[in-house]
Amino acid sequence: MNARRSDNALVLLPLGGAGEIGMNFNAYGFGPAHERKWIVVDCGVLFGRETDTPGVDIIMPDIRFLEEEAENVLGIVLTHAHEDHIGAIGYLWPKLRCPMYATPFTARLMEDKLYEAGLSDRVRVKKVPLGGKLELGPFAIEFVSITHSIPEPNALAIRTPLGTVVHTGDWKLDPDPLIGEATDGEAYRALGDEGVLAMVCDSTNALVEGHSGSEADVKTALTELIGTLKGRVAVTGFASNVARLDTIAKAAKANGRQVALVGRSMHRLVGAARDTGYLTDFPKLIDEAEAADLPPRKVLYLCTGSQGEPRAALARIASGNHPSVKLGPGDHVIFSSRIIPGNDIAIHALHNRLSAAGVEVLTVEDHFVHVSGHPAREELSEMYRWVRPQVAVPVHGELRHMAEHARLARSLQVPQAVVIENGQMLQLAPGRAQVIDEVPSGRVHMDGRVMVEEGLGLARSRRALAFAGFIAVTVALDQKGKVASDPVCFIEGIPEPVHEAIERAASETARRYNPRRADEGELAEQVRRAVRRAANDVWGKKPVTRVKIAWV
Amino acid sequence: MNARRSDNALVLLPLGGAGEIGMNFNAYGFGPAHERKWIVVDCGVLFGRETDTPGVDIIMPDIRFLEEEAENVLGIVLTHAHEDHIGAIGYLWPKLRCPMYATPFTARLMEDKLYEAGLSDRVRVKKVPLGGKLELGPFAIEFVSITHSIPEPNALAIRTPLGTVVHTGDWKLDPDPLIGEATDGEAYRALGDEGVLAMVCDSTNALVEGHSGSEADVKTALTELIGTLKGRVAVTGFASNVARLDTIAKAAKANGRQVALVGRSMHRLVGAARDTGYLTDFPKLIDEAEAADLPPRKVLYLCTGSQGEPRAALARIASGNHPSVKLGPGDHVIFSSRIIPGNDIAIHALHNRLSAAGVEVLTVEDHFVHVSGHPAREELSEMYRWVRPQVAVPVHGELRHMAEHARLARSLQVPQAVVIENGQMLQLAPGRAQVIDEVPSGRVHMDGRVMVEEGLGLARSRRALAFAGFIAVTVALDQKGKVASDPVCFIEGIPEPVHEAIERAASETARRYNPRRADEGELAEQVRRAVRRAANDVWGKKPVTRVKIAWV
Repeated sequence: MNARRSDNALVLLPLGGAGEIGMNFNAYGFGPAHERKWIVVDCGVLFGRETDTPGVDIIMPDIRFLEEEAENVLGIVLTHAHEDHIGAIGYLWPKLRCPMYATPFTARLMEDKLYEAGLSDRVRVKKVPLGGKLELGPFAIEFVSITHSIPEPNALAIRTPLGTVVHTGDWKLDPDPLIGEATDGEAYRALGDEGVLAMVCDSTNALVEGHSGSEADVKTALTELIGTLKGRVAVTGFASNVARLDTIAKAAKANGRQVALVGRSMHRLVGAARDTGYLTDFPKLIDEAEAADLPPRKVLYLCTGSQGEPRAALARIASGNHPSVKLGPGDHVIFSSRIIPGNDIAIHALHNRLSAAGVEVLTVEDHFVHVSGHPAREELSEMYRWVRPQVAVPVHGELRHMAEHARLARSLQVPQAVVIENGQMLQLAPGRAQVIDEVPSGRVHMDGRVMVEEGLGLARSRRALAFAGFIAVTVALDQKGKVASDPVCFIEGIPEPVHEAIERAASETARRYNPRRADEGELAEQVRRAVRRAANDVWGKKPVTRVKIAWV
Repeated sequence: MNARRSDNALVLLPLGGAGEIGMNFNAYGFGPAHERKWIVVDCGVLFGRETDTPGVDIIMPDIRFLEEEAENVLGIVLTHAHEDHIGAIGYLWPKLRCPMYATPFTARLMEDKLYEAGLSDRVRVKKVPLGGKLELGPFAIEFVSITHSIPEPNALAIRTPLGTVVHTGDWKLDPDPLIGEATDGEAYRALGDEGVLAMVCDSTNALVEGHSGSEADVKTALTELIGTLKGRVAVTGFASNVARLDTIAKAAKANGRQVALVGRSMHRLVGAARDTGYLTDFPKLIDEAEAADLPPRKVLYLCTGSQGEPRAALARIASGNHPSVKLGPGDHVIFSSRIIPGNDIAIHALHNRLSAAGVEVLTVEDHFVHVSGHPAREELSEMYRWVRPQVAVPVHGELRHMAEHARLARSLQVPQAVVIENGQMLQLAPGRAQVIDEVPSGRVHMDGRVMVEEGLGLARSRRALAFAGFIAVTVALDQKGKVASDPVCFIEGIPEPVHEAIERAASETARRYNPRRADEGELAEQVRRAVRRAANDVWGKKPVTRVKIAWV
């Protein structure tokens, strides 16, 4: 490695999370252009939506660029255990095959993921203690505890010969987070005093004025609210918010109610928290069957399904299909959560089903039952005042969030704020921060068990089927090239009254075919056009249409 | 008509709007059971969503019950001109063929609809003056002006020999609605003094505390806000909120900006308002081309597209595809509207595109630029105190809204509050209100140009195509019943790596076929199963699969 020291550069390459909330995947590179060493921070998924990506539940970044650089990837460092930060590991680790580092709670949940992916024998997550340090080639990484809506969130102070980057991960400032310590302003101020080149920071709530609020205040409010309720109470929320689970369980206990967990991820997260030393004074749990035998006002169910997920516990309870949990008139469901964008219709449908069963629904719209885990503008401002970076790089947001975040940073006298997109390689040092390259990037869909590049348009082509259905026509030709039978038409997703016109168009076009005047390719195209035109004439829509020739 | 007077009953039959916000369609019946005369109040649509009803833009009620009673339907009375109250007329009037009644502005917009539906020659809307009265058989109907987010909203006082129903339509209490008069509490109090049997009332905002706020306050705030902005300003909102259009145009004028309308429905609504005597002092408009030649700070565009509609003006502007309106850095877009549930993703995507173009986006989340047109709880309470009905019948809401509305009514000492669903016939008098019958009801999709009953599941079956694609296989059999060629497979919406397994399964199954041991129906079923299993083995999803035999 003969490159001169002056050829060294420090770059940031987001492959996910710059332009969306989710799918966080950031790479930092250091060295001369062709001998760069890389570290990866987070490796998350985005959840698919039926509207945009029907049949695709999980979306992850296209990391082909780093895959080619795999031998120079020194490690994957995970800030915290939310799915949008660790969920892609089982799919993407095999492309990088490098060590992974996380604090104990995150590592514990990672182990489940690796097991599910059949990777347990091949890789273990290396545990870093809270506040721990790690050297990976030119990168000296310090885990700096912060607060968020899950145990053990970490910002990373990434020190390099060309300066220090503070990568915040997801965070908020909570003076009393209930689990873990309050954010140590001193630690961030000390980093600022030391000098910070760049801060790469959460943009989720950059449009939200004020402060996100504290878990401790939710505890007070929920305890009071539950005290006013008669009948059964079910509370639903994000299972990974272990502090909230603790709050709810203790609010139940304070009001003479026993707690039953309902739903797989509730059990999984409570288990993981206990395994790693949290929830040591969590109230004793009862199981669903025991709860069913108690008087209604002695019970609280802690349920999965706050986002209206159709297979989660609450959806099954609301439909009356849950084997042991029944709710009805006089009972209550508290949604201790927010509506994730895109889920409003599903959540409101769930509210409606509960209302139909006579259950009263209480939400953040009318009660103080939730606080966000991301920094509102006052918290962002505070952090910028502590860290005082030379460059602000908003990530973890849609463009509107990142743009506003950048405006806020500039208003706080950060000399440079740069909005970049996935795949843009931002040189942080030396010199003024600037985009120096653009690498292949994009999204990969987990479509069933097959990974499919979003760019191939498979999910989009299925949307076309959903819009206007599908027609397939087989025309059989005999050895002389003559039509051997009436065409076979498959007509799917098209109203009955349109079928006859389609079949007639196929038949008539085939009947008119003269092998001496056209070849079978022309025949297929004529049939395709005739059939589509017929559908459009009657229906006003043009279905996807395919025609094939069978030689018999 | 020999029925005794005592056989008379007054019934309410909602066929749309009880269980959803939209698709308002209510029928009132009077008379003995088998000689009932009917009036219809409103005839609206619901807009389809790609998630639930791909390929269906417009949904309307299934009115087959009334269609059979068409000779007894005395008229359709329209409360106001929103699409969810009048949008289905073009489709459903031919099934009822009865007179229609509306106040002038509503009638003017109805005429456009009838023209589009090719019905102009067959029916005219009969104009009722504001505050006018109308007798239809046993129903004496009085139009009672109210306030809402469109000109000429009307409640209806429907007097019958068995009592009076107040049907509110959509409403709010606005002390200064800018267009039309403030709601006359006296008129409603007088109805209450006269005695009201039932109030059938808007539930949209029954979950919202407080008061909806006044258009006049929005005017003050918008005028001030626009005064602070440099560069071009575009404002988007609902074109039917003519008072808001007037507000925006005057706010522009007050700040030295000239106004250009952008988008078809802006022109249509402003035209209709002027035709019917509104907007008499509306500022002079300029066209898009003139606006493009003015300095940026002299222009305000009033645009369609606040809900992220892909073909509306603002979407085209944001994508840089609008022929004459260009926005860029330094320019602003104000969303003077709310997010209609289900549209959040599309609207935020629009915000992102605008942000990407350097345009600043201002919304109700951070500025006071919109008020709702529906009554919040204080307004509902006020109305109940005025009207004092014996029975409250919440409509125009999802179940959660109607349930909460009923709770509120009971808390206000309304003796009976009844939540009913579409298709339930509620006897209002004589005796205590009760459901006496259930008639066929449901939804009809306008699927392309074909009306399709939702119950047929066509849109749902297209969703299955969107989830897992489609396989069609043709197997050609010769006259002896032997397989005549390799099967022809159509594979749509399925990842490439799965195709080979599907084709192989089809071929092998066909090859093994022995016509002496199975018939062609069994062959088709064997191929179908083999192909589906093959897809599932490789992909983990089971596509919709059809197999047909071609006899050659």
